[in-house]
Amino acid sequence: MNRPFNFSAGPAAMPEEVLQQAGAEIANWHGSGMGVMEMSHRGKEFISIYEAAERDFRELMAVPEDFHILFMQGGGWGENAIVPMNLSQGGAIDFVVTGGWSQKSFKEAGKYGQTALAASGEAGGFTDIPDPATWQLRPDARYLHICSNETVHGVEFQTLPDLKALGSSAPLVVDVSSHVASRPIDWSRVGLAYAGAQKNLGPAGLTLVVVRKDLVGQALTICPSAFNYELVAKNDSMFNTPPTYAIYMAGLVFQWLKRQGGIAAVEARNIEKARLLYDFIDASPFYVNRVAPAHRSRMNVPFFLADESRNDDFLAGAKAAGLLQLKGHKSVGGMRASLYNAMPLEGVKALLAYMREFELRHA
Amino acid sequence: MNRPFNFSAGPAAMPEEVLQQAGAEIANWHGSGMGVMEMSHRGKEFISIYEAAERDFRELMAVPEDFHILFMQGGGWGENAIVPMNLSQGGAIDFVVTGGWSQKSFKEAGKYGQTALAASGEAGGFTDIPDPATWQLRPDARYLHICSNETVHGVEFQTLPDLKALGSSAPLVVDVSSHVASRPIDWSRVGLAYAGAQKNLGPAGLTLVVVRKDLVGQALTICPSAFNYELVAKNDSMFNTPPTYAIYMAGLVFQWLKRQGGIAAVEARNIEKARLLYDFIDASPFYVNRVAPAHRSRMNVPFFLADESRNDDFLAGAKAAGLLQLKGHKSVGGMRASLYNAMPLEGVKALLAYMREFELRHA
Repeated sequence: MNRPFNFSAGPAAMPEEVLQQAGAEIANWHGSGMGVMEMSHRGKEFISIYEAAERDFRELMAVPEDFHILFMQGGGWGENAIVPMNLSQGGAIDFVVTGGWSQKSFKEAGKYGQTALAASGEAGGFTDIPDPATWQLRPDARYLHICSNETVHGVEFQTLPDLKALGSSAPLVVDVSSHVASRPIDWSRVGLAYAGAQKNLGPAGLTLVVVRKDLVGQALTICPSAFNYELVAKNDSMFNTPPTYAIYMAGLVFQWLKRQGGIAAVEARNIEKARLLYDFIDASPFYVNRVAPAHRSRMNVPFFLADESRNDDFLAGAKAAGLLQLKGHKSVGGMRASLYNAMPLEGVKALLAYMREFELRHA
Repeated sequence: MNRPFNFSAGPAAMPEEVLQQAGAEIANWHGSGMGVMEMSHRGKEFISIYEAAERDFRELMAVPEDFHILFMQGGGWGENAIVPMNLSQGGAIDFVVTGGWSQKSFKEAGKYGQTALAASGEAGGFTDIPDPATWQLRPDARYLHICSNETVHGVEFQTLPDLKALGSSAPLVVDVSSHVASRPIDWSRVGLAYAGAQKNLGPAGLTLVVVRKDLVGQALTICPSAFNYELVAKNDSMFNTPPTYAIYMAGLVFQWLKRQGGIAAVEARNIEKARLLYDFIDASPFYVNRVAPAHRSRMNVPFFLADESRNDDFLAGAKAAGLLQLKGHKSVGGMRASLYNAMPLEGVKALLAYMREFELRHA
């Protein structure tokens, strides 16, 4: 079956074999006589699905035992409030803003704590990451928040900052939504990481939260019970009914990642995919990417035609060539190719072939 | 294909033809080259799915135009906090507690407003609904909350209370999670109704909120943006990434309900299903249901064996006979048969045949 290549920034392409497996067992999971959507979340069938998903993610990402893995709802926008309700205690929260997502997180957290910018890339149009040595870290900060991959602006931390080395004892909170499971995470530098599932993990409506156990248990009283990490952790993510089908789909993706050789193997392919596209863009006068090379995202590659009057032509031709959802985010314009784990190398090659052909036709 | 009958209280059985349709198009929706899980929520394909779901629900349930229909996340437990954050303004909130769910809602709302019990069925073990004429309604209440069908205790309002006739101008907030779309709703008596999808509408992880437009726009400042009805309504439920696949599945269920003849036809079948089961239980000395007949739920029928030492035998035999998930909620014990829209009359007849046979064998 020949499917088009889907470059959506999220919800995004999923591995075809995962979709086919889900389709085959949609009304009868493993002879249970029930589809996964129809199972009580407290029954042994679903519990086995949940436990396998938790175990596989922990193994894939080498999450240490002193971290909870929570399966929640509300996405990144939800966590923008849920994190400060759980961790801020109404105190100081520092932010490094490197694009649209960390900016949203910064604004939302102001409802729950004393927020301040430690650094911002806004003056440069979010094409760079301010050097951690210049960050203004407050000694009383309850945590420091970053977004380690900015989906809209295509800016990625290639290394997580080492706050201890910068003289801070604040835990690092990281929004990893759009590059989770695309590369390893150095958990020794992390207090909490969260990810909306709809980019690299599964369907929209599931949020994964990985939080160091000692940070849990200090929620503000106005924190809704359903979003209180302590209650969620104590109940193995079943304090309320979890998004069971999305957990099942994420679990199938985790199994697929293991079959791909695990995160190291997947990362190697992601490096190769991104290198091909950036090298091509940099070598062409027809296309441009404005992000500082050291901070370019492997997952989300925004680019522009030098002549933007050809944007609509480019998108129409791409669609006809089986290359879907390449339009850039409205706040940035131009194009964006998202190269999540499920995007095969062949998809990137097909995109390059089309870009080359379009350039030859119009240059 | 012969599937067992699944009596789960939720997540619960879905119509088999809905599951088969979803399975068939899981990797390629209507020739788009994408599965629904893979679509940008801002693309025209998903927008068309969302708009059809909203329109079909409005038509099925005759929701007037002065109500928003919102597709959100967080389930009933989420709404226990989200409703008071949006509607209480920190003022008085009255509750009528008729079972486990309204009791949870009552406790959670205390974080956000001045809660008080207008009435409670707790003294009678939640087997009855206190007469509305006896409810203690405060004149300054921002709203009055009820749960119109208690999933655990099997207690259902057969008519929504008319607060105006009781001398109150407070809007009525109704948790309709476990009987939504099983019967009509008299919207003239409702300010806000919400439902977790995982009983009668679709997969867990989707919450439907139907709210009168004039009640929106007064959220507490600590209300997370993702759960602020005004922001969600202004953005047609796309303020943040919605649970796209769950919306699609709910949309397929709405289409199925229309093919069944709409809510009136579905209600007639639900009445017949419940009547068969209650009549059988009442006629047998071997089984008992303790809820006052006038307030028995059509959707969730808790019952007990007169000899509870046979519970495990009963459940094992039921499973062998293809009757799944009949165990009662742990807080009540015994058995529970949930007869949601997707449970066919044949399922109830099969349950009765088994109960009759088990009784004959053991009486």
